[in-house]
Amino acid sequence: MPGFDWISLTTDYGLSDGFVAACHGVLARLAPRVRVLDVTHLVPPADVARGAAVLAQAVPHLPACVHVGVVDPSVGTARRGIAIEAGHSFLVGPDNGLLLAAADALGGGVRAVVLDNADWFAPTVSPTFHGRDVFSPVAARLAGGARLDEAGTAIDTAGLVRLPDPVLEIGDGYVDAEVLTVDRFGNVQLAAPGEVLATLPPRLSVSGQPAVRATTFADGEPGALLALVDSAGRVALALNGGRAALVLSVAPGDVLRLSARP
Amino acid sequence: MPGFDWISLTTDYGLSDGFVAACHGVLARLAPRVRVLDVTHLVPPADVARGAAVLAQAVPHLPACVHVGVVDPSVGTARRGIAIEAGHSFLVGPDNGLLLAAADALGGGVRAVVLDNADWFAPTVSPTFHGRDVFSPVAARLAGGARLDEAGTAIDTAGLVRLPDPVLEIGDGYVDAEVLTVDRFGNVQLAAPGEVLATLPPRLSVSGQPAVRATTFADGEPGALLALVDSAGRVALALNGGRAALVLSVAPGDVLRLSARP
Amino acid sequence: MPGFDWISLTTDYGLSDGFVAACHGVLARLAPRVRVLDVTHLVPPADVARGAAVLAQAVPHLPACVHVGVVDPSVGTARRGIAIEAGHSFLVGPDNGLLLAAADALGGGVRAVVLDNADWFAPTVSPTFHGRDVFSPVAARLAGGARLDEAGTAIDTAGLVRLPDPVLEIGDGYVDAEVLTVDRFGNVQLAAPGEVLATLPPRLSVSGQPAVRATTFADGEPGALLALVDSAGRVALALNGGRAALVLSVAPGDVLRLSARP
Repeated sequence: MPGFDWISLTTDYGLSDGFVAACHGVLARLAPRVRVLDVTHLVPPADVARGAAVLAQAVPHLPACVHVGVVDPSVGTARRGIAIEAGHSFLVGPDNGLLLAAADALGGGVRAVVLDNADWFAPTVSPTFHGRDVFSPVAARLAGGARLDEAGTAIDTAGLVRLPDPVLEIGDGYVDAEVLTVDRFGNVQLAAPGEVLATLPPRLSVSGQPAVRATTFADGEPGALLALVDSAGRVALALNGGRAALVLSVAPGDVLRLSARP
Repeated sequence: MPGFDWISLTTDYGLSDGFVAACHGVLARLAPRVRVLDVTHLVPPADVARGAAVLAQAVPHLPACVHVGVVDPSVGTARRGIAIEAGHSFLVGPDNGLLLAAADALGGGVRAVVLDNADWFAPTVSPTFHGRDVFSPVAARLAGGARLDEAGTAIDTAGLVRLPDPVLEIGDGYVDAEVLTVDRFGNVQLAAPGEVLATLPPRLSVSGQPAVRATTFADGEPGALLALVDSAGRVALALNGGRAALVLSVAPGDVLRLSARP
Repeated sequence: MPGFDWISLTTDYGLSDGFVAACHGVLARLAPRVRVLDVTHLVPPADVARGAAVLAQAVPHLPACVHVGVVDPSVGTARRGIAIEAGHSFLVGPDNGLLLAAADALGGGVRAVVLDNADWFAPTVSPTFHGRDVFSPVAARLAGGARLDEAGTAIDTAGLVRLPDPVLEIGDGYVDAEVLTVDRFGNVQLAAPGEVLATLPPRLSVSGQPAVRATTFADGEPGALLALVDSAGRVALALNGGRAALVLSVAPGDVLRLSARP
């Protein structure tokens, strides 16, 4: 394994404290040749599902990486730290479901280890900051070309903690789909794959509100609710000139029904 | 053209989603040697004027770059994608006025093309994410040394979409000037060039509120409203120890009158 | 002195304006070989104590750096600009107490200069933006291998402006300690060193509220107030599944009393 030129970071550490800088510092010291690509550090605190969604949608566009994900409310407890090989990349973080959607997006996890080689950790491991003391040092060593099986004991990828699948029911003339994410623009991304949209009529009802099938945000009248295929290939609801999430009063985890307008 | 060491990014994508990371990823894959300098990603959604002001005030301080600007509420419609040569840099983004103030700050646009060479785009272009699928790939190729005329068909820079000039009227004993930006500290930047300030008396009225001419933020009494030349060379209003924008109750687009205190 | 591979930045400039980009640009132009590590730019405006705390807790984890700190409400006045040598690093910024905690964390300042060599500054220095026109150019030159004594006149480190020590009183059966920081998760970090915690009983009172000694955030019942040693080695208060700062109604500068539960 010749190592990696890039490490990506996805956390809920925020940008106001020194947590992200500490991770960058550890990587700079242990892997000075490697460059770090920040996916986001603004995952809401402890929101593992949101972190999983952002990471999974980013990884297809990134170079081969050691992807470090840390949304880890159980840090320092018995929950395991893991590393997964998927596609041309590695994923490193807690075994709480955060990494698996990204592994799937990279083609599926083919091998995994539990991070039990303490020689790779910081000399002293804080029970509250494994991002700095466990995951970053492990990522630096993997990026430097160390083998995955040196990081710890092999485990079955089928036994990794997995988040529940989001609600998606494709029925006769309707689709029920869970809201996966709401982005900065108020666009509402559903669990439904984009292909579903073509099976629905152009004049839609979204849980009772009229909407039209569209291609991009500026389609339709200003203020029109639009259903389109977003840049991640999923069905999303948008509002021309506004925020669909406000008009629909939804948040991630809610379920919307798309159907023909009566 | 030997290419560029740097690409800058200015967008309204925010820092919570994976949009910025996707652009970074595309650049890392297509131009791995190039470094990326983030100007800001917190332009308010669809606020083209704000994006234009921030980018124009940043570019004089940056190295030679391919500057990518994406504040693009009409993405995926008939609005054109463009690239402009100005000074030692290129500017890439939508033809909606976002880039022209920066081109002016770099000495003026000397050549421009409409981005119609689809060979340079991602294999599939999302109608909602040209930042990832059009502008980043084009910027990567320009940074790699490709020629501007390979990016698309030459167009007249005089025909590019230009934002309206901000209000600035220098009268007999008064200056009316539009608020260009309000910064993190609540400082209110006006469209008036700094030289104007010397033509006004030291004891000023700002739309009826008393102010004094000053050099820096800590001049005058705590709570005093100050008129000074800011770090971009423009007249700005500041409050010693507070936020001038609150005291003046203004936002970008409002117009203030500076005159002698009665 | 062979120079530095890294420059770190800690400011209150925010991420919405072009201030940080201007500093990055100056560094890119003057020290193109050097990489920049952003500690944070979200120090609350003019909050020198907060900036000092974040920087001091980050530097032990960073590589050898020229650390630039700018939280500088008196920019452009008679307050001095300084550079300090501490450990294997330099610190550059205003002489207002921002840098000294970090110098202490690096082993203590051994030499300092006042930045009075204007040849190192930008050709024109804005009285409101020394981060761009003084501190970044100075940092670039130091990172390039220039000697500290070329930056200006030597001064006694004992004469540098120092923030007041935070309240810390270790009494008979109680500890009074000032709140140093509140992090993104609502954890409340105290001025007390972690060793103090072991001297207190497992069942604690925190200014009248019951708390338990713990190791990490997920210890104890959901909703339990926890006292633990945080990742910076200080006593901190956390809430399993919530925000301790809300439950305690405290902010930095407040003082809490830890004692045995009655």
